[in-house]
Amino acid sequence: MNFRLIGFIIGIFLFALGVAMAIPAAVDAGAGNGDWRAFAGSGLFTGVTGGLLCLANRGEKFVLGIRDSFLLTSLTWAVISLFAALPFFFSSVGLGVTEALFETVSGLTTTGATVLSHLDLMPPGLLLWRSLLQWIGGIGIIVLAVAILPYLGTGGMRLFHTESSDRSERPMARLKPLAGMISLVYFGLTLACALAYYAAGMTLFESVNHALTTLSTGGYSTSDQSIGHFAAPAVQWVGIVFMILAGLPFVLYIRVLRGERGALWRDGQVRLFFKFLMGAVALFTVWFWAVGEKPFAGALLHVTFHITSILTTTGYSTVDYSQWGTLAFETFFFLTFVGGCSGSTAGGIKIFRFEVMFDLIRIQMKRLVHPHIVLFPKYNGKPIDDGTVHSVMTFFVLYLLSVAVLALALSALGLDFVTSASGAATAIANVGPGLGEIIGPGGNFAPLPGAAKWLLMFGMLLGRLELFTVLILFTPRFWRN
Amino acid sequence: MNFRLIGFIIGIFLFALGVAMAIPAAVDAGAGNGDWRAFAGSGLFTGVTGGLLCLANRGEKFVLGIRDSFLLTSLTWAVISLFAALPFFFSSVGLGVTEALFETVSGLTTTGATVLSHLDLMPPGLLLWRSLLQWIGGIGIIVLAVAILPYLGTGGMRLFHTESSDRSERPMARLKPLAGMISLVYFGLTLACALAYYAAGMTLFESVNHALTTLSTGGYSTSDQSIGHFAAPAVQWVGIVFMILAGLPFVLYIRVLRGERGALWRDGQVRLFFKFLMGAVALFTVWFWAVGEKPFAGALLHVTFHITSILTTTGYSTVDYSQWGTLAFETFFFLTFVGGCSGSTAGGIKIFRFEVMFDLIRIQMKRLVHPHIVLFPKYNGKPIDDGTVHSVMTFFVLYLLSVAVLALALSALGLDFVTSASGAATAIANVGPGLGEIIGPGGNFAPLPGAAKWLLMFGMLLGRLELFTVLILFTPRFWRN
Repeated sequence: MNFRLIGFIIGIFLFALGVAMAIPAAVDAGAGNGDWRAFAGSGLFTGVTGGLLCLANRGEKFVLGIRDSFLLTSLTWAVISLFAALPFFFSSVGLGVTEALFETVSGLTTTGATVLSHLDLMPPGLLLWRSLLQWIGGIGIIVLAVAILPYLGTGGMRLFHTESSDRSERPMARLKPLAGMISLVYFGLTLACALAYYAAGMTLFESVNHALTTLSTGGYSTSDQSIGHFAAPAVQWVGIVFMILAGLPFVLYIRVLRGERGALWRDGQVRLFFKFLMGAVALFTVWFWAVGEKPFAGALLHVTFHITSILTTTGYSTVDYSQWGTLAFETFFFLTFVGGCSGSTAGGIKIFRFEVMFDLIRIQMKRLVHPHIVLFPKYNGKPIDDGTVHSVMTFFVLYLLSVAVLALALSALGLDFVTSASGAATAIANVGPGLGEIIGPGGNFAPLPGAAKWLLMFGMLLGRLELFTVLILFTPRFWRN
Repeated sequence: MNFRLIGFIIGIFLFALGVAMAIPAAVDAGAGNGDWRAFAGSGLFTGVTGGLLCLANRGEKFVLGIRDSFLLTSLTWAVISLFAALPFFFSSVGLGVTEALFETVSGLTTTGATVLSHLDLMPPGLLLWRSLLQWIGGIGIIVLAVAILPYLGTGGMRLFHTESSDRSERPMARLKPLAGMISLVYFGLTLACALAYYAAGMTLFESVNHALTTLSTGGYSTSDQSIGHFAAPAVQWVGIVFMILAGLPFVLYIRVLRGERGALWRDGQVRLFFKFLMGAVALFTVWFWAVGEKPFAGALLHVTFHITSILTTTGYSTVDYSQWGTLAFETFFFLTFVGGCSGSTAGGIKIFRFEVMFDLIRIQMKRLVHPHIVLFPKYNGKPIDDGTVHSVMTFFVLYLLSVAVLALALSALGLDFVTSASGAATAIANVGPGLGEIIGPGGNFAPLPGAAKWLLMFGMLLGRLELFTVLILFTPRFWRN
């Protein structure tokens, strides 16, 4: 394994992370808040460590093998989390090691589960750092989905390989022509989102923070009440629009920009995403209107906002929707598993896997009546090879097994059924809030025991890196030459 | 479609059912209980209806097409349930239509969820009828798994096709040489179980009833406290042994009887079943012993009994295990999904599908590190074709989707998260008790709203007939010529 190259690349990332810490340092310094020292110190340490790592490992040829790529992916996320947690540990909020790391991993994986409360009174640097972590994590995820995972072929991601049959293509070859455009789209949408939030009534600081956590489908907020802090319905509508935009495949935006007008609407994943979204919204709006709990317009806004928030795995809330009755409670639990489109910042099982799965079920049904019919599963009109089909399906099952095992482990620590099950589901799907009194939208992850927080951190990374990427490191075969 | 032949076969079944009603009639008459009239009357009506159906449709050639077989399978179960419910409706307990049908469907599908209480004071005929329903259902399930489903090929059942590539083989061809032996084994084991229960301290009536519901992994009891009514540990050990025997593939017993000594231990399904069972038992016994709640020997018996009961989808209990803390609560929830071996009377997803799934995950993991390696999924040492692999996997996913949809529907009726989720899981897996205060081992299904009972009945049939068999009837394609 090319450990030197891995060290070099992680060095670059750490250096960039150190530089990024200058932003909250400057904001806190400008606001006269003493936390600027925590950021400046952490930034200096992180930047220098990164620089040294680069220097010590420079000169390697930039060629990553398959095993290098697996190790690099997991290791990058773990190491960056360690360093990015430093400001939380050294700042005035004085989080412990576990809590600082939890907040960071939750941020970088764009989960958005928090151990912090009294956000409204928190110094601006810390709030901005939380939002920046999600934004940085978000671009990392898109790059992962566009360049690394299709090359590694985990969980059916080979479907997004440009040259579908050629696995020898190195990740960088695919990333290079796209990287600039993707960053531009990501940055442009964030800017547009910030302006829209500002126009809808947020302050400049609030709009920047929420734009950073909307486009990354992260869900951190500057208020304990999340988006519920803002009374104007316009804020929620802006949130809805940009959460949806953040949940669609970013490569499609580039194809649209290159003149391929119908690229978005012709994509199976996008169509199924909207079917899920509109189906759930319609069902619930009618339900709430029928049981007479809310007027139609209010119900539509509430329902659309929260379903979009869960489906895109953002995790914003305006009210504690776990109080909406048993049907809503359970729907939100199951929606946690769905997730957005692959190639976006959203988590969950992801829409394209449901597409493949529904197609297989359809084929099975046909085959039962007509045993001699020959049918092949397809994705976006093209047949899928069996390796990819198996890959999608094992992902599906492994995902559910992972949630079950994590839930069991949490229950062994004494967490009740709803907290452990929804906690496991929300961590692995990178949504954010769970259900119930403790970790529901009205609650917080702080009261959980330390061991539960470590388990949830592992779950967030596992889900974010699409299971296999992490789990394969635990197989002896991986380390054998 | 050959409706005449379907009518003829259902006629035979109804005639036999009518004859079977003579047993509880005789028992009640002997005990001087007036319910003998309900049984005699229902039996006469059922038998005559069956006889007339046979007469009206006789003379058809005994050849079932694929679509006939699908329709016959679902229709048989539905029609028999309707008639078998008559005694509950007309007897002294005076159940309503919904409750009578619920108790019957739960019996015939060997689920064992009950709406009845004060069982200890109930007339013997009714108790015996409940037990008989499960026993009759049990033999029906084995025949289904051995003869019908491998021919229809639903959910990967083609793995159990003797001539794996020949789908034209008609069900009867496979059933004929096996039917006698299977009935003999089923009857023999039931007799042995009854004698063992009797020796362990049950009365003759109790031992017969519990033998009928043990071998069918049904779980109906003659007491509200289920097996907890019997203080002797020997009763529980007898239960454990025979529940395990009932959860293994019955064809393997025949192969053992024919002299193939190692047939049981060489079977992958049997091995994985014991791994699941012993793993769960070991984990829990150590856990209870470690948290100091129970002495080791007591813990071992309690844990082994209840894990065997859930894993074989029997549903007996001696105590309310949902009070054993969060880990036990959640473990029992997840164990509900596993189920026993195919070709037994157990329900659930079933062990062989986990075998196939684990093999696929193993292959995926290998392929990720060595992309050019060629590996095929295997079952019991033989490669599985892709159609069967897809069939197993879609079953897996469709099973979980069905539980989710049923749970959502139950929650729309106002049932809480635990009741709706565990109720859906226990119905589709044909286990019996759910979790929580209402439908947990200490509770009963009577308090649920009528609509919930109908939904659960549908779930029991859906699970029992392995999903596709039922769902295909709802596709327009099935009814097209």
